[in-house]
Amino acid sequence: MKRLHSLTLIPTFVLATTMAMPVSAQFAKPEDAIKYRKAAFSVLATHFGRVAAMANGKVPFDAKVAADNAEIVAMVSALPFTGFVPGSGIGKTDAHPKLWAEQEKFNASASKMQEEVRKLNTAAKSGNFDVIKVAVADVSKACKSCHDDYKRD
Amino acid sequence: MKRLHSLTLIPTFVLATTMAMPVSAQFAKPEDAIKYRKAAFSVLATHFGRVAAMANGKVPFDAKVAADNAEIVAMVSALPFTGFVPGSGIGKTDAHPKLWAEQEKFNASASKMQEEVRKLNTAAKSGNFDVIKVAVADVSKACKSCHDDYKRD
Repeated sequence: MKRLHSLTLIPTFVLATTMAMPVSAQFAKPEDAIKYRKAAFSVLATHFGRVAAMANGKVPFDAKVAADNAEIVAMVSALPFTGFVPGSGIGKTDAHPKLWAEQEKFNASASKMQEEVRKLNTAAKSGNFDVIKVAVADVSKACKSCHDDYKRD
Repeated sequence: MKRLHSLTLIPTFVLATTMAMPVSAQFAKPEDAIKYRKAAFSVLATHFGRVAAMANGKVPFDAKVAADNAEIVAMVSALPFTGFVPGSGIGKTDAHPKLWAEQEKFNASASKMQEEVRKLNTAAKSGNFDVIKVAVADVSKACKSCHDDYKRD
């Protein structure tokens, strides 16, 4: 690991394929699942936020930083959803209870976000700012749509 | 995305190379960096915990689950360390202040963990339980060593 002020340790991850992981017994308690999905969403939001800040003109565009962060967004985007296990709709969660009654719709929303995130990753690799802007807007729209439906204020 | 009870969306990530990411301007406030590294460590601990539970005989060994989780551990293991930015040693953190005075030693500890995690990922892909057990023990040792030095009780 390099010194913190010149970090070179963020790896490039290549999305290779998908693989099965049974949800059963992944979390000992519902609270663990809630904590996990919040943490994964937080990491996701941090990295997407960096790309979005550039796309929205709040931070100067840096193609490499955009690509690096979009790569992490892509790799983390699948993780939070493993935390929406049955029984984890109560407690310290902003998830709307109807999420568990509408799993197919919720899963479709999650898939839509993941699809847009994959497109953003491709866009960010191109280094084309205008293409990245469109992709960021599409990811934001997918996030908002799912939050509108399944996240409580 | 498949239904939650038969998830097939966790991707396989291939650690391809390392890439530079300037830490500057990554976090607007020190609190953001603290929140980020805690979230990333939490995700890391969840996935490592699943492999460790199998290695330690608490959960029946499932080669695929071990490999899937070890892969995620490997991909997430670099993330938390970007959060130890200067000025983020105060507030809601368990990080010992000396961490920032001993950055080379701290970075070496982080690198050691990442090295052991890479070995665990390779071991987990082999499906050999005895090899995985040794690798899990080595990761645990690396985690503990760094916590002993830089995490406050």
